[in-house]
Amino acid sequence: MERIYTTDIAGRVGERVRLAGWLQTLRRLGGINFLVLRDVRGTAQIVVDTPDALATLSGLSPETVLAVEGLVTAEHQAPGGIELRNPSFEVLSPVRDAMPITLNRPTIGANLPVFLDHAVIGLRHPTRRALFRLSAGIMAGFRCALTRLGFTEIQTPKLVASATESGANVFGVDYFGRRAYLAQSPQFYKQIMVGVFERVFEVGPVFRAEPHDTVRHINEYVSLDLEMGFIRDHRDVMAVLTEVIRGTLAHLQTACAPELALLNARLPHVPERIPAVHFPDAQELILTLHGEDCRGEPDLAPQHERWLGEWARTQFGSDFLFVAGYPMAKRPFYTHPNPADPRYSNSFDLLFRGTELVTGGQRLHLYQDYLDAAARCGYTDLTPFETYLETFRFGMPPHGGCAIGLERFIMQLLGLENIRLATLFPRDLNRLAP
Amino acid sequence: MERIYTTDIAGRVGERVRLAGWLQTLRRLGGINFLVLRDVRGTAQIVVDTPDALATLSGLSPETVLAVEGLVTAEHQAPGGIELRNPSFEVLSPVRDAMPITLNRPTIGANLPVFLDHAVIGLRHPTRRALFRLSAGIMAGFRCALTRLGFTEIQTPKLVASATESGANVFGVDYFGRRAYLAQSPQFYKQIMVGVFERVFEVGPVFRAEPHDTVRHINEYVSLDLEMGFIRDHRDVMAVLTEVIRGTLAHLQTACAPELALLNARLPHVPERIPAVHFPDAQELILTLHGEDCRGEPDLAPQHERWLGEWARTQFGSDFLFVAGYPMAKRPFYTHPNPADPRYSNSFDLLFRGTELVTGGQRLHLYQDYLDAAARCGYTDLTPFETYLETFRFGMPPHGGCAIGLERFIMQLLGLENIRLATLFPRDLNRLAP
Repeated sequence: MERIYTTDIAGRVGERVRLAGWLQTLRRLGGINFLVLRDVRGTAQIVVDTPDALATLSGLSPETVLAVEGLVTAEHQAPGGIELRNPSFEVLSPVRDAMPITLNRPTIGANLPVFLDHAVIGLRHPTRRALFRLSAGIMAGFRCALTRLGFTEIQTPKLVASATESGANVFGVDYFGRRAYLAQSPQFYKQIMVGVFERVFEVGPVFRAEPHDTVRHINEYVSLDLEMGFIRDHRDVMAVLTEVIRGTLAHLQTACAPELALLNARLPHVPERIPAVHFPDAQELILTLHGEDCRGEPDLAPQHERWLGEWARTQFGSDFLFVAGYPMAKRPFYTHPNPADPRYSNSFDLLFRGTELVTGGQRLHLYQDYLDAAARCGYTDLTPFETYLETFRFGMPPHGGCAIGLERFIMQLLGLENIRLATLFPRDLNRLAP
Repeated sequence: MERIYTTDIAGRVGERVRLAGWLQTLRRLGGINFLVLRDVRGTAQIVVDTPDALATLSGLSPETVLAVEGLVTAEHQAPGGIELRNPSFEVLSPVRDAMPITLNRPTIGANLPVFLDHAVIGLRHPTRRALFRLSAGIMAGFRCALTRLGFTEIQTPKLVASATESGANVFGVDYFGRRAYLAQSPQFYKQIMVGVFERVFEVGPVFRAEPHDTVRHINEYVSLDLEMGFIRDHRDVMAVLTEVIRGTLAHLQTACAPELALLNARLPHVPERIPAVHFPDAQELILTLHGEDCRGEPDLAPQHERWLGEWARTQFGSDFLFVAGYPMAKRPFYTHPNPADPRYSNSFDLLFRGTELVTGGQRLHLYQDYLDAAARCGYTDLTPFETYLETFRFGMPPHGGCAIGLERFIMQLLGLENIRLATLFPRDLNRLAP
């Protein structure tokens, strides 16, 4: 008999069907044994009403994998009004040990380190499973929105000969006796590929050797990158990003409705134009609204971002806010300055509920500008950048792009307290397993 | 004026339009200057018929980035019967140096090392661009086929605490003073995630520190992985794989028709059932057809695979052939034996035009079987596998999966002589840049 899913039994009353999944609970209630079987889509209640069936289950613990055939029966007291009766079980994988964490309650009781130690089974909990379905949904929605906009997917090397973003915070690799590094971002490669496809995106791992032990840092994460050519300035990137965020959320709405409901998640509304504030104006706002004078500082502190997020919420009803025109001082060397005022850059951050979700902007595209920027940054030896610079020596259009942190997106979307809950198997200062 | 693409001008005769792209050639022909402009979609011929326009282009080399406005004119001598006249140019990014390789001929003349050294510009050649559009098409088609079949996408760590497939051939990473490794495959993680989603896939980089300098080896490549639970045996994986290959090729056919035409690529036909031959029978065949006795050997040599590929072609008209039931001796420890004859495994290779494209099979799913396999392989210290084994201690269904090498797929599809041509920026024994 073909196996069907627990969510498919409602239409099969009166038939014998075959289910398969994990023993979630086996409980004696009023003299009757009820078994709850979990599969990837849901659960089903099975009345263990024969001595044979009960004998098969003897000594087995939760998470035992079972196939079961039984009669689908309407029963108004059962969850969903349906249960299986007269079952016969086949044990596919017996479990006899006690679980290190409990999976058959509505929430996971274990604290974070214990949960992470046992993530290989903890992730089976329906709330965790739902979260990573959203994760898959964000990736699919991102790709789908960009493909519609004429972007081409690329896969670029993670093993590189030199650091991308800065010399610090890279992981070193022993590469056949030479020194290699793990890519901190696909930045250089996605720019190079604008010369080939004009519009490109990549979804893949990036590696940051930042020795920070906070709730917001992990050392390997998934970056959703895009880069596009023939732009006027960073505002073209902001417009595409707005459409991508809108498309991604629309995809979640249709592809992950049950998961959003289970997690009680509120999808943000994306206004036709996401409100944008110029960096120095944002600092003035903070002074006016909260009395804190951060004017002249080259960046925003997390508290500043939260205040701006609140302001966008009350002022515009928007969960999103662009802050544009950060000072050049804090932006990487490939950042394009604002031609009208070169102290500031043609770059932006996108805040989502008061936290930076995206960083992006226009990049330099002229070869001479790169040489000047390198000199200004004190790079005396340009050898590590030789092939990167060759791109610009042979004709690159004005271009820009941005990168979304997948885990950060999930964290803000669900209001998680720790980013480690937004990645299957987090890597941090102390954790390399599971 | 909004920029349009070169492929859109045919419908705009009599209008002034704006194009943007790269100067491909500028040629004097019969007293008239013709400029060919290349953008991501194609090329357009522009007649440089005013002294002003010619002056703007003075001293500029191929690959200069231009925006041009001009009058779309029907001209039967022009390529496609259309050209732009009376142009005005805007130089977005001037090029004055001589190109290290030539991009404006139908094929690339440079030899492989020179091409790879200058890949950042060489990839702009229309034939190279088309190839990597196919690469993107394979990834999209793979994901699309699997999503339709109820698979969920996962992203698993590339930084791991211990080797996956075997102790050798791993890249070591300095991880905050500890030793970490780059994942050789997502094998363990995709198995673990079968416990969560039942059916999972991943598209991502894998790293193999194999010190082989051949036309078939690179040290970082993109692996298309899938893994599925509640199977009867490896034949269920083979059936899903067949559907995935079929879906992927169908996607290429619709999404990449111009690229397939440009590259003169013949898409293989996928028969309703891909022919399959049992491993010892394949060895008998080789003896019968080619007089070479390889019976008793635990694996097939590349020449054997080529012979079998020819046989599948002539016998069944199939570019694909499954070889199933490899001896256990050469398969990894997690491989499920054939219950009827445990010398052989429930595993398979899929040959595509006589070369292994996919390796897969059923995995062990019972905890005790893993302990026995580890003992048999002489693993005395199971600590590195502790969390992996926890998965099986707490209930895993019969499961299996497989992995397709993206670059290998492209190489066989296009008949490339070197796998380095199937990856944007190859990593090998000697090459870490660009």
